[in-house]
Amino acid sequence: MADKEPAMFTRSLNPTFSDTDALGHINNTRIPVWFEFARNDVCQLFTPDLDPRKWVLILARIEVDYRAELYFNAPIEIRTGVSRIGSSSFTVSQALYQNGTLGAVGKTVMIHYDHQVKRAKPIPDGVRSELESHLIDTAAFVS
Amino acid sequence: MADKEPAMFTRSLNPTFSDTDALGHINNTRIPVWFEFARNDVCQLFTPDLDPRKWVLILARIEVDYRAELYFNAPIEIRTGVSRIGSSSFTVSQALYQNGTLGAVGKTVMIHYDHQVKRAKPIPDGVRSELESHLIDTAAFVS
Amino acid sequence: MADKEPAMFTRSLNPTFSDTDALGHINNTRIPVWFEFARNDVCQLFTPDLDPRKWVLILARIEVDYRAELYFNAPIEIRTGVSRIGSSSFTVSQALYQNGTLGAVGKTVMIHYDHQVKRAKPIPDGVRSELESHLIDTAAFVS
Amino acid sequence: MADKEPAMFTRSLNPTFSDTDALGHINNTRIPVWFEFARNDVCQLFTPDLDPRKWVLILARIEVDYRAELYFNAPIEIRTGVSRIGSSSFTVSQALYQNGTLGAVGKTVMIHYDHQVKRAKPIPDGVRSELESHLIDTAAFVS
Repeated sequence: MADKEPAMFTRSLNPTFSDTDALGHINNTRIPVWFEFARNDVCQLFTPDLDPRKWVLILARIEVDYRAELYFNAPIEIRTGVSRIGSSSFTVSQALYQNGTLGAVGKTVMIHYDHQVKRAKPIPDGVRSELESHLIDTAAFVS
Repeated sequence: MADKEPAMFTRSLNPTFSDTDALGHINNTRIPVWFEFARNDVCQLFTPDLDPRKWVLILARIEVDYRAELYFNAPIEIRTGVSRIGSSSFTVSQALYQNGTLGAVGKTVMIHYDHQVKRAKPIPDGVRSELESHLIDTAAFVS
Repeated sequence: MADKEPAMFTRSLNPTFSDTDALGHINNTRIPVWFEFARNDVCQLFTPDLDPRKWVLILARIEVDYRAELYFNAPIEIRTGVSRIGSSSFTVSQALYQNGTLGAVGKTVMIHYDHQVKRAKPIPDGVRSELESHLIDTAAFVS
Repeated sequence: MADKEPAMFTRSLNPTFSDTDALGHINNTRIPVWFEFARNDVCQLFTPDLDPRKWVLILARIEVDYRAELYFNAPIEIRTGVSRIGSSSFTVSQALYQNGTLGAVGKTVMIHYDHQVKRAKPIPDGVRSELESHLIDTAAFVS
């Protein structure tokens, strides 16, 4: 597993038995959930107390590339950074490792959003500079 | 599978692959989800359009007895009725069948609840008589 | 909602309360699960009895574009077709509608796979011609 | 939150957004999943490397009492112990806390099981004495 870049957030978790499927490994649909879990660090830049009533983000798109089988009985480490910042949207890039092996890579397009008027709104300058401090080169996501 | 009593609601669903686990069968934690799905018919007596913003129920307790292994590749039928009606709470009893075999039996204690003041409130008479029309004898939940 | 093309598979489902999240709508992570559910029709071309012990497919990649908020209290219709067929891999394209509105579009790259030797293997001719009969133009996925 | 008894296992986790529901709190169906996660410590007494292919347990019954609303933005602590040991079955008792408040209490009846011949089998003496060292008084599960 490559060294973690300082700009990346890191979270780890342990799978539950219900994360597995009949093929004996982690089911593919759990990876978007784990990536959502790890994006909490990014959401916290927008909503510091993570109170859902103050939520200002929505998802526009996800991509996940599955690189290796994942197992029930070993911890998962997720690395998260920002790979693109637009005026009101940005892209989060994530990689998931188990036993030092790259298991999955993901991209999520998120939009800074006003849930009252249901419209995108520009990312505030303060949050923008925080996002910039987490800009990463996704080429770093290697085994 | 015993004949369905008229007072019971019936819903069916097909498992997804992610409902299975590494033992090759349906994971136990999916059964509470499927029972929640089938309780929609009961919730609709309280909130006819099922709009979550008008929700007036909370859960106090669940019990599930697992009776048989459940498989990915056959439909599930769930039967739902009411087994107890109190002043502000009631109990929903449910059974789940696959290929005519009783797979699980469940009880859920639900409370008619005011989410604003966070307090139980009496079941309205109109809803009560509807609940009464779905009273069942759980002895009917046999293979 | 555009008319369904004959080559598409169609499945429908009703959300459960646990599919919603604190923003009041369906959580984004449920869409990959629902698309997996609807891909059962494609998996059945490879494993007619859907017995997990005979499974010959793995996932290489998923993409989901979220187009509209999805609600708890209305049924979901999913349309599924094949948009690319390679030698051992193929791409499934899917669209999800609620109340006639396009809610999400997805692509899944699947690989015909030998789980014993852990290697891709060519799609058999019989299955290939069945996949071909489900080839669709994803431009048909409009509201 | 009462002091943790030495015989109890403790695990903590952070909720994901998809664990919430449209009422703004954690959905009830997530608690059985979180209790399953925390029972890994008990399963490890039977299967030290937690390899699913060596699994020797099945679930016969679960009960969950919901005591307080649970929130997305604070960690969950789960305490797990054994409250009954029979010849081939035993009961795991668990409590879940958030911000020091008791949020849910659960019981799970598990059976030591031979998945080949599909029959219960006696708990081996070595595992039995380990289970005994985790016997707890569930009266300790208070706020």
